[in-house]
Amino acid sequence: MAFEAQLYIRFHHVDFAQVVYFPKFFDYCHQVFEDFVQAEFGKSYRCLMEEEGVGFPMVHAEADFKKTFSFGDTARVLLEVISLGKTSLKCRYAFFHPGEESCAAVITLVGACVSMQGFRPTPIPERWRNMLGRHLQNPPNLL
Amino acid sequence: MAFEAQLYIRFHHVDFAQVVYFPKFFDYCHQVFEDFVQAEFGKSYRCLMEEEGVGFPMVHAEADFKKTFSFGDTARVLLEVISLGKTSLKCRYAFFHPGEESCAAVITLVGACVSMQGFRPTPIPERWRNMLGRHLQNPPNLL
Amino acid sequence: MAFEAQLYIRFHHVDFAQVVYFPKFFDYCHQVFEDFVQAEFGKSYRCLMEEEGVGFPMVHAEADFKKTFSFGDTARVLLEVISLGKTSLKCRYAFFHPGEESCAAVITLVGACVSMQGFRPTPIPERWRNMLGRHLQNPPNLL
Amino acid sequence: MAFEAQLYIRFHHVDFAQVVYFPKFFDYCHQVFEDFVQAEFGKSYRCLMEEEGVGFPMVHAEADFKKTFSFGDTARVLLEVISLGKTSLKCRYAFFHPGEESCAAVITLVGACVSMQGFRPTPIPERWRNMLGRHLQNPPNLL
Repeated sequence: MAFEAQLYIRFHHVDFAQVVYFPKFFDYCHQVFEDFVQAEFGKSYRCLMEEEGVGFPMVHAEADFKKTFSFGDTARVLLEVISLGKTSLKCRYAFFHPGEESCAAVITLVGACVSMQGFRPTPIPERWRNMLGRHLQNPPNLL
Repeated sequence: MAFEAQLYIRFHHVDFAQVVYFPKFFDYCHQVFEDFVQAEFGKSYRCLMEEEGVGFPMVHAEADFKKTFSFGDTARVLLEVISLGKTSLKCRYAFFHPGEESCAAVITLVGACVSMQGFRPTPIPERWRNMLGRHLQNPPNLL
Repeated sequence: MAFEAQLYIRFHHVDFAQVVYFPKFFDYCHQVFEDFVQAEFGKSYRCLMEEEGVGFPMVHAEADFKKTFSFGDTARVLLEVISLGKTSLKCRYAFFHPGEESCAAVITLVGACVSMQGFRPTPIPERWRNMLGRHLQNPPNLL
Repeated sequence: MAFEAQLYIRFHHVDFAQVVYFPKFFDYCHQVFEDFVQAEFGKSYRCLMEEEGVGFPMVHAEADFKKTFSFGDTARVLLEVISLGKTSLKCRYAFFHPGEESCAAVITLVGACVSMQGFRPTPIPERWRNMLGRHLQNPPNLL
């Protein structure tokens, strides 16, 4: 049910402490979400944004960071849809070091569906709702 | 008690939707924390890291995004220390549009004090504890 | 004649080698140009873009990197306008470590004036031309 | 002879003008170089840096930007080694829109081989020299 991605940690994703700079993890999540959408719909997130006239800006984020990543590491990321409202979407991204069972970082993001004209909340379009529904964890698989 | 900073939103801080890309807010927080430390101690965060051999990697983050910022905006940011443990530190960053009373975004970050050798938790050094204690909101000023 | 800026090198501007990641220098240049425009016109680059309907995307860049910068350093940056065509603008950005006479990095950027609708080359507006002309080095002050 | 990579342009790689922010192209080059090294040696750039104790900081860069890229585009990038000195390496990165013959951007980067201890120039290690030599364009394939 979960969408899985592999992320290669680059030379400049780290900070002076030589570990991934924590804001970068939120960027990784967005990147995994873009790839998830592309994999599910067979077209780019941009195409979908333009066809439907909607986007999903973040309204809430929560993160726990347990183990660091550094340059040269590969992170395995599992994306789960954990709830689906009329105009909002909650996803969880669990980051693992390869071969480890406990996650190194877990991030939960709530996005609101908005029209790209005016950024007003709008119901999640049918096609998105169907796709996201198929990935919904019920009950959610607590990490 | 709060430390106040002004952040100018740059040309490339925005994403395709022409609003600040949400991971960037976490970066702004780190920047404000660096400036807070510099203002309080009169020396750079790097100096302090090297003198004490400690750093404050993030272990937890929470954020609520209510209004967007875009290129050309200036964000007023208030940093408050909201709790201070033996080895951890919780700060809240409230982002305001100039002249507005309700915050546009609020981010809470928990950092762990670790030794830069080995990243093991270590008590917050006295000098830091004294400085942070002076900024502690008690009771916290709920936004 | 040159516009001068001070840039503080942040925790995450460095890469795994703990020195400023070289693409970041180009970002610093853009930041200095934004501040130059703001200082000269007393309004933001965004305002100006919107009032005139033009922007200055880069068409050419050249850079020499001689000494590194790291977290905690402050770079002194001198911006000089070195040539001004009908639809293009060449600026040079020299980066110095404080107190040093030879520059640590020098970057030359050529921007084209384009209409924001369609990105077609368009003559540099009068108000910009006047301002830039006042900063033109003639002959350029070779570093 | 050239190493080829596909780069997907992400949501936040663009600036307020909704095209790739020009400093990002230099970052793309580094990313392609990391992948080139990984593909050639079958191990990560980090491993190689640690085994040999050397890195390749940039000393010179040149770029021409002819056509923009935006969110949702895929760039085809060709990396060519165009000269190989005792302690330096020049590579050219040509960016293409899919199906187009003329390049949209071309970037030339000169890196110096330095020891990671002290950042002093040092001869390019044999294993690197052999690998890079196999990719050397002679005469260079002028784009």
